Amino acid sequence: MQTPIIPNPSFLIPMQVHILTIGDELLIGQIIDTNSAKMAQMLLEIGAKVTGRTAVGDEHEAIIGALQRATEQADIVLVTGGLGPTKDDVTKKAIADFYGVGFVFDQPTMDRLNVIYERIGKPITEAVRTQCLMPQNAQVLTNKMGTAPGMWFEEGGKVVASMPGVPFEMEYLMQHEVLPRLQERFNALPTAHRTLFTAGEGESTIAEYLKDFEENLPPQVKLAYLPAIIRVRLRLTVSDADPVFVEKILDEKFREMEALLPPQIVAGYGDDSLESVIGRILKEKNLKLSTAESCTGGYLAHLITSVPGSSAYFEGSVVSYANSVKMNQLGVKPETLEQHGAVSEQTVQEMVAGAIRLLGTDVAVATSGVAGPDGGTLEKPVGTVWIAVGNAERTVTKKLQLTKNRLLNIQYSGYYALNLLRLFLMGK
Amino acid sequence: MQTPIIPNPSFLIPMQVHILTIGDELLIGQIIDTNSAKMAQMLLEIGAKVTGRTAVGDEHEAIIGALQRATEQADIVLVTGGLGPTKDDVTKKAIADFYGVGFVFDQPTMDRLNVIYERIGKPITEAVRTQCLMPQNAQVLTNKMGTAPGMWFEEGGKVVASMPGVPFEMEYLMQHEVLPRLQERFNALPTAHRTLFTAGEGESTIAEYLKDFEENLPPQVKLAYLPAIIRVRLRLTVSDADPVFVEKILDEKFREMEALLPPQIVAGYGDDSLESVIGRILKEKNLKLSTAESCTGGYLAHLITSVPGSSAYFEGSVVSYANSVKMNQLGVKPETLEQHGAVSEQTVQEMVAGAIRLLGTDVAVATSGVAGPDGGTLEKPVGTVWIAVGNAERTVTKKLQLTKNRLLNIQYSGYYALNLLRLFLMGK
Repeated sequence: MQTPIIPNPSFLIPMQVHILTIGDELLIGQIIDTNSAKMAQMLLEIGAKVTGRTAVGDEHEAIIGALQRATEQADIVLVTGGLGPTKDDVTKKAIADFYGVGFVFDQPTMDRLNVIYERIGKPITEAVRTQCLMPQNAQVLTNKMGTAPGMWFEEGGKVVASMPGVPFEMEYLMQHEVLPRLQERFNALPTAHRTLFTAGEGESTIAEYLKDFEENLPPQVKLAYLPAIIRVRLRLTVSDADPVFVEKILDEKFREMEALLPPQIVAGYGDDSLESVIGRILKEKNLKLSTAESCTGGYLAHLITSVPGSSAYFEGSVVSYANSVKMNQLGVKPETLEQHGAVSEQTVQEMVAGAIRLLGTDVAVATSGVAGPDGGTLEKPVGTVWIAVGNAERTVTKKLQLTKNRLLNIQYSGYYALNLLRLFLMGK
Repeated sequence: MQTPIIPNPSFLIPMQVHILTIGDELLIGQIIDTNSAKMAQMLLEIGAKVTGRTAVGDEHEAIIGALQRATEQADIVLVTGGLGPTKDDVTKKAIADFYGVGFVFDQPTMDRLNVIYERIGKPITEAVRTQCLMPQNAQVLTNKMGTAPGMWFEEGGKVVASMPGVPFEMEYLMQHEVLPRLQERFNALPTAHRTLFTAGEGESTIAEYLKDFEENLPPQVKLAYLPAIIRVRLRLTVSDADPVFVEKILDEKFREMEALLPPQIVAGYGDDSLESVIGRILKEKNLKLSTAESCTGGYLAHLITSVPGSSAYFEGSVVSYANSVKMNQLGVKPETLEQHGAVSEQTVQEMVAGAIRLLGTDVAVATSGVAGPDGGTLEKPVGTVWIAVGNAERTVTKKLQLTKNRLLNIQYSGYYALNLLRLFLMGK
């Protein structure tokens, strides 16, 4: 495909943002930092790029040092955390000292807090009044989701915006105060992205298919890999001053990328998951599904039922951990277990037939394997797993040789089974 | 309790660690950084403190700059991510340039990869061979969980350790290579910790019980809360130059802490989980367990079977998503479903009886609820869940009013059910 691509020099300087998160609880690992990922996603939507991220504890000197390094590295520094009465407003003091300014009392914030505290029937303490003290050079960002206001600073061409660490307060301030100001202040580039979802191949195999494509992408286009167990999300992002060009090139490159992949591994788009994709196919074909699980122990049914509305196509599962349940409920023949063992092609085939009969479904999936860490033999080592998918007419099976890690084996088996089901439903 | 506590000044200078995470996927918010929290927790166990954290993209100059700043700020820099074939090993190149060294080919790594690739039947590509090139000053850390090796560097009194970003690979290398080396290299203060595992109360309730205790802890003793759904791990860590003192004070404070908690919420110790604790009780009492699941959709069976050896006491589960399965398999009466609905005390009681009969177990657990986001009514809004636990003699039930979030509701229901089972098995 030959398309004239006009590199736009302004693409080379997207807004560069440094995220600074403040809080001891982040450093000692009591809290997982979800704010940074959310902020990065929101920034991406306006074409801004996070070029670095720092976390420091609730310490005055550490915060000042981090602000200095961050403003050297990026024009925009977004700060979360360290605000509020229990934090002793350590961030606010550090920012004021960073700029060498004093504090002023912000009456509009006091008025807002008066209303809140009257409503919840709590007295205005000294700690509350302290929240109204603002560094002299701060523009106050009204936080409609909480008490601690946000702050916006501009000095020497650099912007610092400070927000509380509570996720929904941060999100509110980003959406309603920080992003609009950034767009106005920095003439943001139009940006769009589109995601392709693959199943059945690992990241490195997909990277092989896309090697030349990726190497020859114009500078406005970025390809990101988001790998998970046997699934990879491929996200294309385009930023350019010309919004028409953005849409055009995104569409073009997305088609080009998809055409380079084997059709059977392209499982969906956007936020699709294996669970949601098989649900959609089952609903379209008006088919009912059941599972018969040994080594996955309910995990496969859990994946399927994690999708809202899955009760429309999922009838249920028999988790047959004991051989007695395999025989008595699913009708696996004692001879089969004796001759071939519970971890065998014959057993999962009979489990599929049993689930279809017992739960009255059109399609069923079965798993049986040695999840580990014990229970392996020379012939069937830990990680040996059989999966089967079938309906009244045909059954397909697959043998996996997985890892020595029990939880990984369960997860791999669950996703392999879902993907085998997806291919089966598509007639492959 | 009056114990003379001699503060040890060396306690005041714990190992200071800077964590550097590398990867575009972290900066653009495609992945939430869980590694940093896990690493901080693991470091805390050897008495080391994370004093700062940085994230940068997969860019050579950015990584070198971050390494420079990180080694200025701390004696120990732990790096994750940016290794492996699709990353083009950007981290390894940046570290080599940071130290101004070239690469050597590491034959032991090649030997290890040969075995792995032979087992999975894939050819050794050039990208694989590249993984064996190591900066000249690197000590190779063998990664038994994946292909990319870890690396250990020591220059000018500063340590830099680099690990892959895949969570279980990072955890393996931290546990088996990095932490032991740090303890040896930095003459870590004798440190010991002990963990108490609670179930059934939230973090804030437990913090109330332990408020005075925590405020009066001597400086050598730290209490960390590690909260999860209805479970909290309380970890006491003691560091002091005197190892006898460490053991003595840890024992003393641990007993004191445990005595302050209601006995029924103390579920276990160390690495115990609700899943492993109920498994231990069932084995001790020689009882067989089954589950009958509606809203948890297999998640409860998955939790139970995530424990190695669970086949010794877990027979299986009937996931009865459709009412037909509740009636036909579990023997729930049509009148019960008609009069009380699927989400009712009567239904979960009959599900317990059905699972015991059908799967031939001593004890069974049942769940039924409105997981959401749709399907709620005025009488039974989204988040309404009934759970029941019973044997041949008695059944206990509990109604939960949970959230509007489907996945959270499934998880809460699973853990509440396990805790109800724990209390039932203890005769409470």
